[in-house]
Amino acid sequence: MMNKIQVIGFDADDTLWVNEPYFYDTTRRFCTLLSDYAPCEQVEKLLYQTEVGNIPLYGYGAKSFILSMVETALRISSDQVSAGTIHKILELGKDLINKPVQLIDGVREVLDELHREQFRLIVATKGDLLDQERKLRKSGLEGYFHHIEIMSDKQEGDYKKMLNHLDVPPESFMMVGNSLRSDILPVLGLGSYGVYVPFHTTWKHEELDESDLSHPALIKVDNISHIPEIIKNTNQH
Amino acid sequence: MMNKIQVIGFDADDTLWVNEPYFYDTTRRFCTLLSDYAPCEQVEKLLYQTEVGNIPLYGYGAKSFILSMVETALRISSDQVSAGTIHKILELGKDLINKPVQLIDGVREVLDELHREQFRLIVATKGDLLDQERKLRKSGLEGYFHHIEIMSDKQEGDYKKMLNHLDVPPESFMMVGNSLRSDILPVLGLGSYGVYVPFHTTWKHEELDESDLSHPALIKVDNISHIPEIIKNTNQH
Repeated sequence: MMNKIQVIGFDADDTLWVNEPYFYDTTRRFCTLLSDYAPCEQVEKLLYQTEVGNIPLYGYGAKSFILSMVETALRISSDQVSAGTIHKILELGKDLINKPVQLIDGVREVLDELHREQFRLIVATKGDLLDQERKLRKSGLEGYFHHIEIMSDKQEGDYKKMLNHLDVPPESFMMVGNSLRSDILPVLGLGSYGVYVPFHTTWKHEELDESDLSHPALIKVDNISHIPEIIKNTNQH
Repeated sequence: MMNKIQVIGFDADDTLWVNEPYFYDTTRRFCTLLSDYAPCEQVEKLLYQTEVGNIPLYGYGAKSFILSMVETALRISSDQVSAGTIHKILELGKDLINKPVQLIDGVREVLDELHREQFRLIVATKGDLLDQERKLRKSGLEGYFHHIEIMSDKQEGDYKKMLNHLDVPPESFMMVGNSLRSDILPVLGLGSYGVYVPFHTTWKHEELDESDLSHPALIKVDNISHIPEIIKNTNQH
């Protein structure tokens, strides 16, 4: 029987490798640097507002985050923060970019299996172009992927463009990711399959109430290792 | 007679639209902000060193440039610069990102002609993903292009990957751009054609001595409008 699913797309951050915990940890250290000006909760809230406000201009990813930290430090201190603190913020940012790439459990095994079974595997991720390329290289997973798509946004139209470009009909595409908002809902809208694999830490901006989500092409699993089994079930229908 | 050239790649910044003069102008304003600490020449030199030093970590583009301006301000002032000045640097950066897109003379006409003649046109550019996409949208040129490739670097291997991905043999590809280093030499190395269209302002990092450059597939012109004529000549050989 022919496989219905031919191409499987994987989100990268917090789907293939750990990411959000590093941002979380950096945010904690950023709060400590600014503890003279405001309690952590308030710093964090302003940082989030600044980040979201800057998305149209800066987009996603590590460099945007660093610029938003600098801006937040200026705002929370009413332009009183010292140059030494700004210096430390830039260092926090460089540390963040240089973090090791830590694969999530089961990722290598499942990619290896799907690759052997001749599925065309792609990475479809937001974020910083160079940063994501570097993480992929460091991950040692590059060889499994036929194509890497780094997107400035992950809305339905962005996926549509990608599938056209790859010449894949939506019903043959399955997207795997930890963000309902960015990885799952847009592809369901196109008629593709979405495999939602929640990660224990999710950036607030990606959070969505999942209580009333129900769609025949949406599958939720607790680990990426269930994908081959899901594909078998999908093909039996 | 069949066209040898099938796909034409265009660099974006300073090939399709004005870019470097905006960076130059921002650098001047940056120097003025730091005139208490050092003469402009010295600020500019340190900024350049900082930018180049940060390329492996930050890559190319506007956000990298803003981060390098902040870092330069800290370094040139030995961490004495005021938060107000850092604030102004972030504003310079946002102004830079928001600059209007000004097409270079002859660009729209030549793209229109080549598009009508059924060449497959692509953009191949370095820089910031979101920033380049936004400039392309603002340029009104998007409809002429079959594909936009935003690359973290433009070395021979990067072009090779792109041509493989687009399924174009190197001898059917012509690249047009203002940087010998990034647009021309790498594609000549692959066996493609390179059309070098110098722009009056070039970032130091892209500069190359052109005095002893000679290659049968390298063509230098003073304006992009000569491309249709060049292609006709190329096809006669």
